[in-house]
Amino acid sequence: MQRISTVVHIRPDKIEEYKALHASVWPSVVALLGAANIRNFSIFLREPENLLFGYFEHHGTDLEADLRVMEQHPDMRRWLELTTKCQTPLASAAPGENWSPMREVFHLD
Amino acid sequence: MQRISTVVHIRPDKIEEYKALHASVWPSVVALLGAANIRNFSIFLREPENLLFGYFEHHGTDLEADLRVMEQHPDMRRWLELTTKCQTPLASAAPGENWSPMREVFHLD
Repeated sequence: MQRISTVVHIRPDKIEEYKALHASVWPSVVALLGAANIRNFSIFLREPENLLFGYFEHHGTDLEADLRVMEQHPDMRRWLELTTKCQTPLASAAPGENWSPMREVFHLD
Repeated sequence: MQRISTVVHIRPDKIEEYKALHASVWPSVVALLGAANIRNFSIFLREPENLLFGYFEHHGTDLEADLRVMEQHPDMRRWLELTTKCQTPLASAAPGENWSPMREVFHLD
């Protein structure tokens, strides 16, 4: 199992919209996350810095392949279109990157 | 069980020291975290923003009491003295606050 953490900015004028979307996540999105072997997935918000931190655990063997399949599904594409519009990549994000990866410096089971 | 996420800046000149400390965490600190009912605890680093993101799960019934007892232990006081010197609170941190709390906006088991 691999722990993944990512960070992105949220647009301050989109915080309520983002919360509303996540308060009633589409069942198909939930199913696609599960099919991608993603478990224990949380998103946290820090205001007024307007940072979103994502944390999840990947229980498969090929994270990139699982994400690629998941993100190609039409429902996930629509979902990501809506949620990505609420976000702004970090200034240091790689080209085309929305959520930027973090590196684990400590873990205790 | 309660999921806790917190954020703090790391001083860029202290990143290596912080990593070294966490690469060989004191056994007493590990034991004290366990006694405080803290499980699945990770710390992630994002450079060059120099953000630390902490995530853990609290399996007790009184988080504040567990943290208070833990932080009063001499070993944890020494540990926090060393690690806190590597960090800078967010500009928006409450007085005396080091790690600042985040709010969960999404969770999927």
